[in-house]
Amino acid sequence: MSTSYFGCQSLRFSPAKRLFVSTNFSSRKFRCGPAFASTSDFGKDLSLQMKVEMLLDSMKWDDKGLAVAIAQNVDTGAILMQGFANREAVATTASQRKATFYSRSRSQLWTKGETSNNFINIHDIFIDCDRDSIIYLGKPDGPTCHTGAETCYYTSLDDLMESQQEVNHKLALSTLYSLESTISERKVEIAVPQNGKPSWTRRLLLDNNLLCSKIREEADELCRTLEENEDKSRTASEMADVLYHAMVLLAVKEVEMEDVLQILRQRFSQSGIEEKRNRPPKS
Amino acid sequence: MSTSYFGCQSLRFSPAKRLFVSTNFSSRKFRCGPAFASTSDFGKDLSLQMKVEMLLDSMKWDDKGLAVAIAQNVDTGAILMQGFANREAVATTASQRKATFYSRSRSQLWTKGETSNNFINIHDIFIDCDRDSIIYLGKPDGPTCHTGAETCYYTSLDDLMESQQEVNHKLALSTLYSLESTISERKVEIAVPQNGKPSWTRRLLLDNNLLCSKIREEADELCRTLEENEDKSRTASEMADVLYHAMVLLAVKEVEMEDVLQILRQRFSQSGIEEKRNRPPKS
Repeated sequence: MSTSYFGCQSLRFSPAKRLFVSTNFSSRKFRCGPAFASTSDFGKDLSLQMKVEMLLDSMKWDDKGLAVAIAQNVDTGAILMQGFANREAVATTASQRKATFYSRSRSQLWTKGETSNNFINIHDIFIDCDRDSIIYLGKPDGPTCHTGAETCYYTSLDDLMESQQEVNHKLALSTLYSLESTISERKVEIAVPQNGKPSWTRRLLLDNNLLCSKIREEADELCRTLEENEDKSRTASEMADVLYHAMVLLAVKEVEMEDVLQILRQRFSQSGIEEKRNRPPKS
Repeated sequence: MSTSYFGCQSLRFSPAKRLFVSTNFSSRKFRCGPAFASTSDFGKDLSLQMKVEMLLDSMKWDDKGLAVAIAQNVDTGAILMQGFANREAVATTASQRKATFYSRSRSQLWTKGETSNNFINIHDIFIDCDRDSIIYLGKPDGPTCHTGAETCYYTSLDDLMESQQEVNHKLALSTLYSLESTISERKVEIAVPQNGKPSWTRRLLLDNNLLCSKIREEADELCRTLEENEDKSRTASEMADVLYHAMVLLAVKEVEMEDVLQILRQRFSQSGIEEKRNRPPKS
């Protein structure tokens, strides 16, 4: 197709903006100047600067001048880590586009990744209704946790209550990624001999013909819910089937759902024409 | 199929556990007793109780006895709200399976939903590597924010910098739900006369035959990346196409992705046989 999916470059992901915050911070009021901006950008940058100042003024900082800052993976929605941010940390994050926090123990700013190189690249920053809590929505360059885990949240209270072990590692994942993780586990288990009837996932993982025929069949059934004006509940159920079977194929091909979503994000944040031009040729 | 997808009831979502915490809290050490447990459950509940006590002992509470608690939608991954929790709040959340916080202004526990009835039903609780931050992973009964918004995070700093308006409402959404939201916006715009060539999404939304033929075609292309041993990057790209086109169909049928994921979660937390039995008959 030569048209754009959406006919514009809108979409929820604003292009990165640079505010060029100077490093001359005063204690509470940071000063940002268009240090590297061209003369023609001056007015625009000044206006942006004033807006950020106003926004930071409207925040409800606690008695230590801090607010909670939560870093979230823009593609998977996984909560990567949580820290605290002061005025300077938010301003720096907005200008440098790397998640930056205020370390309460070291009493200084720190940018996640300055040691590990696993920066969290900011796509947008959100503030809650009370203006005392912040989401840094971004794309991590690598594992966020200092332990090497993808996120800092890998201890499940429910699991801890169930098992005798003190430590178990299960990431806090939303449904799609829990499903992906379970399919991957089944793939690893394939090598282990099994008693009894194999699970459906196992059968699909072992039989490409079966898997592909199921994907085509489920896609067809999804379409028929529209063509034959079936119930909404049937559409949802068939879409669940399409998603599950397609995700088994991803597991076979060792492709992660996060990669798929990254493609969608990149595709929809540029015009369809431009995106098509940049795609690799089909075989 | 008569087999289970996974051949067991495992999966990441532990069934709800009840600890039956009594309401006789002491100041710091809460007491939980198996108030409603049968005699045979007594030993098990006592053991669970001890485990929760140990876990709560190992938490790093701040100087006010609090930790950050983040409520996250288990199906979409959306961060719903953020509050603070003390020992009692976490214990109550674990036992009652409703997200419960400690109100710093009212100096008392509060369960989200006790006024609005929009409870957040807990699926699991996660603790971070530092043991001072908690995720309440759950399913909200309705909008979480007191403003009626789905989540409390609807103010984008980037948007605020771009527009002149002080207030704009754009939820902090991860890629899949941003895409869904944009497709929905395009659907609303269909009624508005448009100049120039229509976007691809608009064409799909207006032409069921085109949409269904594309879904079948993209599913086929996804399968061929496996059958013809194509590059992983092609698989990811074709999966992105399948997902996008199927999501346009969901928009036409007014089905939300969250409903699809809820079905997947429910399907994979029970045996396949049981789930199949509970499905409505196909047309």
